[in-house]
Amino acid sequence: MVNETQHTCSASSSSKSDGGSSSGSESSKDSSRCSTPVLDADRHERLREKMRRRQDSGDKWFSLEFFPPRTANAAVNLISRFDRMGAGGPLFIDVTWHPAGDPGSDKETSSMIIANTAVNYCGLETILHMTCCNQTKDDITGHLQKAKRLGLKNIMALRGDPAGEEWEEEANGFNYAVDLVKHIRNEFDDYFDICVAGYPKGHPEAESYEADLRHLKEKVLAGADFIITQLFFHSETFLKFMKDCQAIGITCPIIPGIFPIQGYHSLRQLVKLSKLEVPQEIKDVIEPIKDNDAAIRNYGVELAVSMCRELLDSGMVHGLHFYTLNREVATTEVLKRLGVWKEDPRRPLPWAVSAHPKRRVEDVRPIFWASRPKSYIYRTQEWDDFPNGRWGNSSSPAFGELKDYYLFYLKSKSPREELLKMWGEELTGEESVFEVFTCYITGEPNKNGHKVTCMPWNDDPLATETNLLKEQLEKVNRRGILTINSQPNINGKPSTDPIVGWGPSGGYVFQKAYLEFFTSSEIVTALLKVLKKYELRVNYHIVNVKGQNITNAPDLQPNAVTWGIFPGREIIQPTVVDPVSFLSWKDEAFALWIEQWAKLYEEESPSRMIIQYIHDNYYLVNLVDNDFPLENCLWQVVDDTFELLN
Amino acid sequence: MVNETQHTCSASSSSKSDGGSSSGSESSKDSSRCSTPVLDADRHERLREKMRRRQDSGDKWFSLEFFPPRTANAAVNLISRFDRMGAGGPLFIDVTWHPAGDPGSDKETSSMIIANTAVNYCGLETILHMTCCNQTKDDITGHLQKAKRLGLKNIMALRGDPAGEEWEEEANGFNYAVDLVKHIRNEFDDYFDICVAGYPKGHPEAESYEADLRHLKEKVLAGADFIITQLFFHSETFLKFMKDCQAIGITCPIIPGIFPIQGYHSLRQLVKLSKLEVPQEIKDVIEPIKDNDAAIRNYGVELAVSMCRELLDSGMVHGLHFYTLNREVATTEVLKRLGVWKEDPRRPLPWAVSAHPKRRVEDVRPIFWASRPKSYIYRTQEWDDFPNGRWGNSSSPAFGELKDYYLFYLKSKSPREELLKMWGEELTGEESVFEVFTCYITGEPNKNGHKVTCMPWNDDPLATETNLLKEQLEKVNRRGILTINSQPNINGKPSTDPIVGWGPSGGYVFQKAYLEFFTSSEIVTALLKVLKKYELRVNYHIVNVKGQNITNAPDLQPNAVTWGIFPGREIIQPTVVDPVSFLSWKDEAFALWIEQWAKLYEEESPSRMIIQYIHDNYYLVNLVDNDFPLENCLWQVVDDTFELLN
Repeated sequence: MVNETQHTCSASSSSKSDGGSSSGSESSKDSSRCSTPVLDADRHERLREKMRRRQDSGDKWFSLEFFPPRTANAAVNLISRFDRMGAGGPLFIDVTWHPAGDPGSDKETSSMIIANTAVNYCGLETILHMTCCNQTKDDITGHLQKAKRLGLKNIMALRGDPAGEEWEEEANGFNYAVDLVKHIRNEFDDYFDICVAGYPKGHPEAESYEADLRHLKEKVLAGADFIITQLFFHSETFLKFMKDCQAIGITCPIIPGIFPIQGYHSLRQLVKLSKLEVPQEIKDVIEPIKDNDAAIRNYGVELAVSMCRELLDSGMVHGLHFYTLNREVATTEVLKRLGVWKEDPRRPLPWAVSAHPKRRVEDVRPIFWASRPKSYIYRTQEWDDFPNGRWGNSSSPAFGELKDYYLFYLKSKSPREELLKMWGEELTGEESVFEVFTCYITGEPNKNGHKVTCMPWNDDPLATETNLLKEQLEKVNRRGILTINSQPNINGKPSTDPIVGWGPSGGYVFQKAYLEFFTSSEIVTALLKVLKKYELRVNYHIVNVKGQNITNAPDLQPNAVTWGIFPGREIIQPTVVDPVSFLSWKDEAFALWIEQWAKLYEEESPSRMIIQYIHDNYYLVNLVDNDFPLENCLWQVVDDTFELLN
Repeated sequence: MVNETQHTCSASSSSKSDGGSSSGSESSKDSSRCSTPVLDADRHERLREKMRRRQDSGDKWFSLEFFPPRTANAAVNLISRFDRMGAGGPLFIDVTWHPAGDPGSDKETSSMIIANTAVNYCGLETILHMTCCNQTKDDITGHLQKAKRLGLKNIMALRGDPAGEEWEEEANGFNYAVDLVKHIRNEFDDYFDICVAGYPKGHPEAESYEADLRHLKEKVLAGADFIITQLFFHSETFLKFMKDCQAIGITCPIIPGIFPIQGYHSLRQLVKLSKLEVPQEIKDVIEPIKDNDAAIRNYGVELAVSMCRELLDSGMVHGLHFYTLNREVATTEVLKRLGVWKEDPRRPLPWAVSAHPKRRVEDVRPIFWASRPKSYIYRTQEWDDFPNGRWGNSSSPAFGELKDYYLFYLKSKSPREELLKMWGEELTGEESVFEVFTCYITGEPNKNGHKVTCMPWNDDPLATETNLLKEQLEKVNRRGILTINSQPNINGKPSTDPIVGWGPSGGYVFQKAYLEFFTSSEIVTALLKVLKKYELRVNYHIVNVKGQNITNAPDLQPNAVTWGIFPGREIIQPTVVDPVSFLSWKDEAFALWIEQWAKLYEEESPSRMIIQYIHDNYYLVNLVDNDFPLENCLWQVVDDTFELLN
């Protein structure tokens, strides 16, 4: 009467649905299971599986193409853009390959390093472009090995533009993209997902449209997993191309490349490169407004939206690929108007997950780096194992040294002049520092009228969640409890809560109240007396720059401060207060006073000496209130401390 | 201004309090930490450390001595006694070595196997006695290796009684207990904690009291960790002995051996064996009442209580060792009157923890074996790793086969005749089976006037916690939902809650509602229809004896159904509903119908065929309500199912 069903593990075989295997009495012996809870199926799937799953479920998706920046400053900006545009939920981004820009090198601006940053630090599924003409097999293999080592899983295999005017085939060389596809499959088996380019109007150098389709089929037969097309100006162009592909037996996903017109010059340049012709009706609109960027962009957005709607309405298109030209406004606008931009992307965990396959199982981190996730990823990049479920043995490896501190993506996004405006051109005492912290919390301008939108320990404005504590935080910062991290206690809010929720729906999230701050030794002395009254309720760690460490944490055990309970899952506890890594964090937290703040001022200047004094004499304190169902007692602890001091 | 303190990990170095080591800025690199949360420090300490900790904290403790049983039935009873007396919280139990009873063998009644059962199945810290005279080094080493393999960590090193009347020293042989102590330390280094015997009146064969004290000191110098004394009749005897020991430099713990007089004959026999003389004032009381066991026992209890009080009041005694003679009443009475019997022993985890060192980290188990923990331990004894934190890869090893099913400690404690009275001399249909289940739940006698105090799946009467669900359970069992396991949902009760609490105080415990039952395929068909309405809220597994398996569990993920949040700890989730081990449990759960119930009846008898029919045709179902903060919906699911059937 009952059908036999068998659920298979999506991490190992989600793309296979052969089912059927009997779970008889011996099944416990050879059953394969996921070793870790799959909170977010996406995280364990390769790109082609994600694409397939969206296609099956009918969810529309989009992807974003970027090119590598020219300067280190531009790189910092581009990475911020990755974060902002990543929030909209692209299925992937891709980074083009610039043969002239030393694309496989370790330079901050190389294609390889930008793609690495997108995957590892921004947590974005990323395709790295790679061109093969004029390159040796060894070069290519070297690039691919490096990409693999960095955790990149997807390659866009392209021929690239030949160096000279007249191009001749090389025997045994890479003459076409298909050679690169074959090479990747030969040397790396199924490790990479491979994407190839399709030309809705045929490649400009192809003998004919039909011949070009046959070349495309060869690339697919050689092992390509999906196709992204060159830009086009009419939806019919793409839909005809797609039908023609299907007619000759190309069955893999074909993703239309969308180019929202954003300006007169960029359009001209792209058209020249791609050897396409701009349709007359578009030229007719643009020429008269060619000096009005906003007008052109508005027109481009309209055009792109209506073309995308036609594509999606055809029922043949599930995903849209955007040529962003590294710009944000037009593409975001198109995506929002199409309704595919995720306004409230569900957070799989409270912190931004890295997309490196090695970090796939990672589901617990110390709370200390909550506002500096990229620094945490950077300092743990050499770890072979990541904590999963518990903050256990895997945390034994050392954190990376601070010597590479100036790595560009750990730098502040704001230039020196701006930081000085926010943090004070001239400090007159510890109180002026208290003032900076207070302004950051309140969002009010400082006495010179500048808002404090970042701090050395927080690259971004205050988190929404922290706003829940704003009033209390303001009060204590004014008095020299210089807070750098905090969270309210939460006793079982739905996992879909817009402020504190994370993880799949249907769950409940919890938090213990947490407060982390720098403060003077005078306050610490009083605080320690007060904490005796809270001995069983409040756990504390108090450390100065020299590493003198006072704690009541039992046995160096981590304390889980954020956890979630979900249907059909084990408990997830993504953040802990960990006594051991706190000492690594301490080094970083104290160093930031000097590296980001003191060094804004001249050596020996009073301002610099004030920061240096704080660095040398203050303590870094963290407090956890273990009684999460009761009212947060940490404010009372601080009040009691000030009372004792008076 | 602030003192530097350093907490060390109690699992690795709790007995050392040298502190002082600086936790400087490099400390994160070489810090040692416990890899698992130390919920219960006891579990990670060796016996001598536990003893030391109790001494330091001033907590009084007791221990219990047993001898191996003569028959397999007596062994089953003794093990039940271990469970009952273990509940009072002894620091350890010890099992004597009976050279005549093949003490190192694999027999159910051997000293070795009884000690093994106490450690592994009853979770009791255990000392195995071992005598050395008339034994070769190889024999002794073999016994010690076996003890180590079984997880025994403590040896009471004794000479034993020589075989012949006249005893002569053997050159290079084991002549005295000190030879055995040296041998253990030579061959096994510091692996075992070693206990030796002390004689408050001097060993009967010693040249003098002083010479005997010197022998005792030799044993301690050879590596003994503590001393348990022979019985005595006056507290002054022990206190003088203790002072004399200290005077010659014996500083290890000395534990007085207490013998509550329980009967005339047992007293005479023990006195004869130990070559002690019963004081005249005791003889004067006992002789007149020598045929009144109860009167003698009452007197013995009074005597023991007052002597123990004197010992404890002296301030020199922290622990008391009881010669139980395998009896329960007198010793328990003495302990309760002294106030050292734990009336409400805190449970470190919701299930009974095994004391095998290999299982030290184990802190999560499938809920299925909740009422059969010994079977679970037995079936997982070959595992090298135990799940810790998450039910992960370590659960891949197979569960032990059911072929050794008849192992004595997995048998029902009740004899066949009693089981027949409870479960029915003659069954008339499936309804008579429903009736048995219902009587077990309600505690009401069955129609023949017998209470059903155990079931094949539950060796003990209903758990207190299950009483919370009694009314609902009764209702559904009457209608053929034959429940074998259940728990209510709990949304954050204090960890000290007398019914559902576990773990250290100051924490909060949680549960998802769980229900597991056998039922007919007709009911399952309706149930599956109803479950569609509860798809996101209720997880289910439904399986028949052939292994046909229906589930909505995602990706074979375990579902945590009991968890606890504690101050300064990571989350503990001690029970999960695990889809993979459910199929191993299914084999056991179905087999119990046949092995324990059907086989009570003649082959081909109608009663047997009824049970066989249920075994062949019913489904085993488990349901979890994931919405633990809401009212348990599982009863509604069952109600809806019956409504659909009507």
